[in-house]
Amino acid sequence: MKPKKVAESQTVMSEIVMPNDTNPLHNLMGGNLMRWMDIAAGICAGKHCENYVVTASVDHVSFQRPIPLGDVVTINASVTRAFNTSVEVYVEVFADDLKGGNARRCNHAYLTFVAVDKVTMKPCPVPPVLPLSNDEQNQFESAKRRREMRLILSGRMKPSDAPDLRSLFLGEEKKKSE
Amino acid sequence: MKPKKVAESQTVMSEIVMPNDTNPLHNLMGGNLMRWMDIAAGICAGKHCENYVVTASVDHVSFQRPIPLGDVVTINASVTRAFNTSVEVYVEVFADDLKGGNARRCNHAYLTFVAVDKVTMKPCPVPPVLPLSNDEQNQFESAKRRREMRLILSGRMKPSDAPDLRSLFLGEEKKKSE
Amino acid sequence: MKPKKVAESQTVMSEIVMPNDTNPLHNLMGGNLMRWMDIAAGICAGKHCENYVVTASVDHVSFQRPIPLGDVVTINASVTRAFNTSVEVYVEVFADDLKGGNARRCNHAYLTFVAVDKVTMKPCPVPPVLPLSNDEQNQFESAKRRREMRLILSGRMKPSDAPDLRSLFLGEEKKKSE
Amino acid sequence: MKPKKVAESQTVMSEIVMPNDTNPLHNLMGGNLMRWMDIAAGICAGKHCENYVVTASVDHVSFQRPIPLGDVVTINASVTRAFNTSVEVYVEVFADDLKGGNARRCNHAYLTFVAVDKVTMKPCPVPPVLPLSNDEQNQFESAKRRREMRLILSGRMKPSDAPDLRSLFLGEEKKKSE
Amino acid sequence: MKPKKVAESQTVMSEIVMPNDTNPLHNLMGGNLMRWMDIAAGICAGKHCENYVVTASVDHVSFQRPIPLGDVVTINASVTRAFNTSVEVYVEVFADDLKGGNARRCNHAYLTFVAVDKVTMKPCPVPPVLPLSNDEQNQFESAKRRREMRLILSGRMKPSDAPDLRSLFLGEEKKKSE
Amino acid sequence: MKPKKVAESQTVMSEIVMPNDTNPLHNLMGGNLMRWMDIAAGICAGKHCENYVVTASVDHVSFQRPIPLGDVVTINASVTRAFNTSVEVYVEVFADDLKGGNARRCNHAYLTFVAVDKVTMKPCPVPPVLPLSNDEQNQFESAKRRREMRLILSGRMKPSDAPDLRSLFLGEEKKKSE
Repeated sequence: MKPKKVAESQTVMSEIVMPNDTNPLHNLMGGNLMRWMDIAAGICAGKHCENYVVTASVDHVSFQRPIPLGDVVTINASVTRAFNTSVEVYVEVFADDLKGGNARRCNHAYLTFVAVDKVTMKPCPVPPVLPLSNDEQNQFESAKRRREMRLILSGRMKPSDAPDLRSLFLGEEKKKSE
Repeated sequence: MKPKKVAESQTVMSEIVMPNDTNPLHNLMGGNLMRWMDIAAGICAGKHCENYVVTASVDHVSFQRPIPLGDVVTINASVTRAFNTSVEVYVEVFADDLKGGNARRCNHAYLTFVAVDKVTMKPCPVPPVLPLSNDEQNQFESAKRRREMRLILSGRMKPSDAPDLRSLFLGEEKKKSE
Repeated sequence: MKPKKVAESQTVMSEIVMPNDTNPLHNLMGGNLMRWMDIAAGICAGKHCENYVVTASVDHVSFQRPIPLGDVVTINASVTRAFNTSVEVYVEVFADDLKGGNARRCNHAYLTFVAVDKVTMKPCPVPPVLPLSNDEQNQFESAKRRREMRLILSGRMKPSDAPDLRSLFLGEEKKKSE
Repeated sequence: MKPKKVAESQTVMSEIVMPNDTNPLHNLMGGNLMRWMDIAAGICAGKHCENYVVTASVDHVSFQRPIPLGDVVTINASVTRAFNTSVEVYVEVFADDLKGGNARRCNHAYLTFVAVDKVTMKPCPVPPVLPLSNDEQNQFESAKRRREMRLILSGRMKPSDAPDLRSLFLGEEKKKSE
Repeated sequence: MKPKKVAESQTVMSEIVMPNDTNPLHNLMGGNLMRWMDIAAGICAGKHCENYVVTASVDHVSFQRPIPLGDVVTINASVTRAFNTSVEVYVEVFADDLKGGNARRCNHAYLTFVAVDKVTMKPCPVPPVLPLSNDEQNQFESAKRRREMRLILSGRMKPSDAPDLRSLFLGEEKKKSE
Repeated sequence: MKPKKVAESQTVMSEIVMPNDTNPLHNLMGGNLMRWMDIAAGICAGKHCENYVVTASVDHVSFQRPIPLGDVVTINASVTRAFNTSVEVYVEVFADDLKGGNARRCNHAYLTFVAVDKVTMKPCPVPPVLPLSNDEQNQFESAKRRREMRLILSGRMKPSDAPDLRSLFLGEEKKKSE
């Protein structure tokens, strides 16, 4: 399949934090933000794969800054790398108040999606990602390490079979033992 | 107040057409699309005005192409011109199927918003719009004519007091009588 | 097709303004009101046409009076005139507070709907409207002028081909030139 | 307090059955219908009491006819009788298909509401109901019997203290023993 | 059909009271609670019947204690007795504040469901309920009396044909006449 | 603070997969499931902490089995261990079809919540967790390792400072180098 540029499937989503999206402290609930991140990333993955996609995994997400009622949430989603029948999507979350002030970066996450054929319901091959900018190339490179982590965390790979990831801990180990 | 560029408040919104958004023919209901257009335009107007805004009017909208269940709707909103305490926003609606194919332009509309002070609940002055590109300048120019039409349609101006608009009909008249 | 009375399809809808329907100033958002107007008008059009209908256009709407959280919104919809495969619906919006006090007229709009056959998805003929009261006859007459305006605004008619509408501007012009 | 006519607070509500309102057999779920009945009756009770109201009870409801996806539900609510700080509301549910055909009566129920002062949160006196038509007078009369039944069912009255209700069973008993 | 234990279909549901679920006094609306009770009871009935079920009736419900915004509502549903093609479900409603304090019993109700075949849309036989504990046996016994009441209230049985129920009123009558 | 048992805050939540919760392949969207998991875990954390809580992080989640429209999702949430002002919650997701058949385990995840004082909006101490069963003790022990992973993934700890986690990779390394 012909590689596709990251820009071809980039997706932007804007939402206002409505009363029903908030917890009793009047801030956006974490679960609602994850729902929006999943939708934005899913639209992006669908455009890249030119196929139906289903969420396969969401990597660790942490919520550092509260997003109060009435703020505008902007979510940017772009593909980083494809693996046979799946694609990794990077999602960044920004918030402004309704007057466009107090702009801040709130969150980011990596999600993976599997392309699925609507009739057979089987996974389908997806086009490779063609990284162009420095940022896109960094994301492309590090995607391999994130994939190893995912396979270990879901019990489908042993740490000893994760060369990219292990060097992280081993490197630290070597430095310490010197 | 210092004029602001159109690009400073441009807003993009993406939504998937969900089952509850559709009519029994499985297409997006017109009223749901208008609700999304109002939200996207309101975010854009709030960013430009750096204030709370309320919808003052929606100009004529026509719905030519059905948008079926599962399609991705992308809404672009940008300011065209400010008038004392109000701002006009231009909204364009595009749709793709979930695979990113069959992209098409579906709709457009002009909405106006009034900036409102949260405490006094009175209208507030808004910054002028600084049009740069040709497109932005055309929108800026034609905004005056659309405003006259709005004032006539809401009964606040007589047709005889709408010079920009009248020339449209008068020009035609003159040509015919020659 | 046999003409039908306006009363046969008149539709009333009541809604309470819920927290998620409001903007940060705690008033009903314009887009939510338009969604309700579209639903009420669509039910009315469906009853008149005895068929599936889709929204074809919404004429200029202006929002003069805020409707706060908890108010009861009542929407009346009635057909004004049919044109081959489409029908115009007039919608009026009233609001009371939850105690039934502070009743006021908030909005009105004209929407058009096209009747669509569910199998062929093609437009279908709709029964004529039989206007009885003075009000119904006025609405029936003025519908022609509104239709011309709609065709001009959507670029499907030239101002010079809109005799009913042009007289409005021309009449003013003649008076001035006398 | 001055008695009020039934017509002064009569309320009509129209809703389309949307996908999320239905069960897997594609019919309106009973609980969603009860939610709409509660809202329509609450608006009606608020208008009669000219005060905030809270649902105190819902009498036995049975669901005989399925209402499929896309049908239009019309709910009529009118007060029947007031009791100090509460009012009984009679609700009737009708359904048509989206083309306005297959009209049918689907349900009815009696709900009671208590008027509540927003500051003290205590029950408040409500105006008496002035029944005019035969129907309104029958509803007014039978309201006493329904109230006894309600008090028995909620354990606040003994059957022996319910003269209106007991005669129903006793009358039958006497006839049998003759 | 083989009898099934009550425990096999017991269902627990937890919900947070969100802004859109509340009335202007900031308490859960009665109709929203009934919607949740219907869903919890419907899940329970479906598990017992191992079939699709539709709500046939809801018995008298009274609302004694307000449940404020942000409280956690817990609904327990369990079958009490089966009757040919229908099953009665007992629902209890509890509330806590978000900190798990102020736990209280708020409501209870009996709902009946009919099992329906998805293809023929006809009622289907349901397995008998096997009551084990004292509570379960009491509910099983009293279900007969509640069923008589239901049939009388929906006009399908005369009071004179309701032996279990009549004894309630007759017993009182006898005592009084002694 | 006095330690609390796991059972004191265990929370069960049941939901039916509704049309609007599904993707175009008619299965529950991943983001909607995460929203439910966050709500169930948040109720559980609030009960344990006896305080307001906000989501601090969600660990890696993978979605292996599709959950089709109409299925019943049951979510169990229980605390595993407290750390000063935060608590880890373990969430398990099960699904059955509406008839109670085809029961299966679909997902699990660890979420962390921070207890927050409503007035100062500062983190508050939370009671320790008292693990009793073997399962509870295993979860309690492994919570330390998951916490190290979380701190590394959010950039607040170096791998070399994560003794519990490093042994996992180092152990593998030692075996290999032997």
